Amino acid sequence: MKVEFWYEFASTYSYPAAMRVERAARDAGVELLWRPFLLGPIFGAQGWNDSPFNIYPAKGQYMWRDMARICQADGLVLKTQVRFPQNGLKAARIALIGNDEGWGPGFTRAVYLANFAEQEDISDDNVLAAILKALSLDPAAIVARANTSENKARLKTQTDEAIARGVFGAPSFLVGDELFWGNDRLEDALEWAKR
Amino acid sequence: MKVEFWYEFASTYSYPAAMRVERAARDAGVELLWRPFLLGPIFGAQGWNDSPFNIYPAKGQYMWRDMARICQADGLVLKTQVRFPQNGLKAARIALIGNDEGWGPGFTRAVYLANFAEQEDISDDNVLAAILKALSLDPAAIVARANTSENKARLKTQTDEAIARGVFGAPSFLVGDELFWGNDRLEDALEWAKR
Repeated sequence: MKVEFWYEFASTYSYPAAMRVERAARDAGVELLWRPFLLGPIFGAQGWNDSPFNIYPAKGQYMWRDMARICQADGLVLKTQVRFPQNGLKAARIALIGNDEGWGPGFTRAVYLANFAEQEDISDDNVLAAILKALSLDPAAIVARANTSENKARLKTQTDEAIARGVFGAPSFLVGDELFWGNDRLEDALEWAKR
Repeated sequence: MKVEFWYEFASTYSYPAAMRVERAARDAGVELLWRPFLLGPIFGAQGWNDSPFNIYPAKGQYMWRDMARICQADGLVLKTQVRFPQNGLKAARIALIGNDEGWGPGFTRAVYLANFAEQEDISDDNVLAAILKALSLDPAAIVARANTSENKARLKTQTDEAIARGVFGAPSFLVGDELFWGNDRLEDALEWAKR
C-alpha cells in the first residue's frame, strides 16, 4: 500500500511533516505520493475565512508553542510568526507539476522553509522563482505551465478529491480509504500501509 | 514536577487517556493530579453549543474512526455512539470529591466506561449511584456533598482555572505552565515532567 501525503503550504504542522515524510516512508519501505491541496475552500465551507488558529486564540497560542517544541525536537528552525496564514495557491500549482517530474519534494521542502524558517512571502513570484532557480529549474517556463487553466483546474480537482475522501485538515495521510490527520499520525499511517 | 490530567467526561479522547494515565505516570515515576473540568463554557465562549465533532461532520467522522483504532490498540471497548456528547456535570462534581479522597481515579474510569463502552446515560442519578455503590461508597451521602453550593462553585473555579491556564480542549496535560493537548501527548507531558 502507498501512503498519500496531503499538504497545504499555509499549514504549520505540514512543515515538520514535509521535512520528515520522505525519509520516514523510505525507512518503512512504503511508497509515498505527494498531494498538495488547498484548505481555503474546506475552511470556507465551515464558515471560517481565516485559520482556526487565528479565530480561536487559545488554540493558536497552544499551536505555536507545540510547533516550537516539535521543531526543536526535529532540529528545524521556526521563526516568530508575522505572516500567518500565508497564501500557498501559487506554490501548490507549481508543486503539482514538480510532483509529476520528480522535483516536487525538494520544491515543497524549500517552500516550507521559506514560509516557516525564513518568513518569506511564499505568494511572491520572486521568492518562488528563487526557489525554482536553486533547484536548477527554469522559473519562467514552470510558472507559465503552473498558470495554465488546465493546471489551475487540476488543483481544484485535487482539493475536491480531498474533501470527497474526508480530508478536513493538514497534514493528512491516506492509505487507501484510511485517513490519518496530523504530523503526529505519520507513523500510524506508515504502519497501516505495511499491514 | 507533577503532571495534571485535565479531563471532561463528555470528551471522547479523554476516555483512552483516563484508562492509561495512572499506569503511565507510575511507570514514569511522575506524580499525577486528576483535574475534572467542563468544556461547555469554553466551547460556548467560541460560539459552539454542541461538540465540534457534531458541528463539523468530516471532523466527527474522522474522530470516531480514529477512536476506534485507538481503542482497538489499547484493548478498550468502544460502543457505537448514540448519545454524544453526554452531560458530565454531575459526574464532574462527584469526581472532585473523589479526587480528594482517593477514589476519584476509579470513579472516573468507571464513568468513562459507562459512557463510551456501555453507552449508559452518565447524567442519570441511578447510573452514577450504581458506579459509587460498586466502589463500596454511599451514593446518597456523596451526591448530597457533590450538590452543595460550595462544591458546585469549586467546579466552576476549576473550569475558570483551566481557561486561565490556556486549556481549550480535553484531555489536556499541564506540567507547570507547559500545556499538552490530546491523548497522544501524554508521553510528551511525562517526558517534560521528568526533565
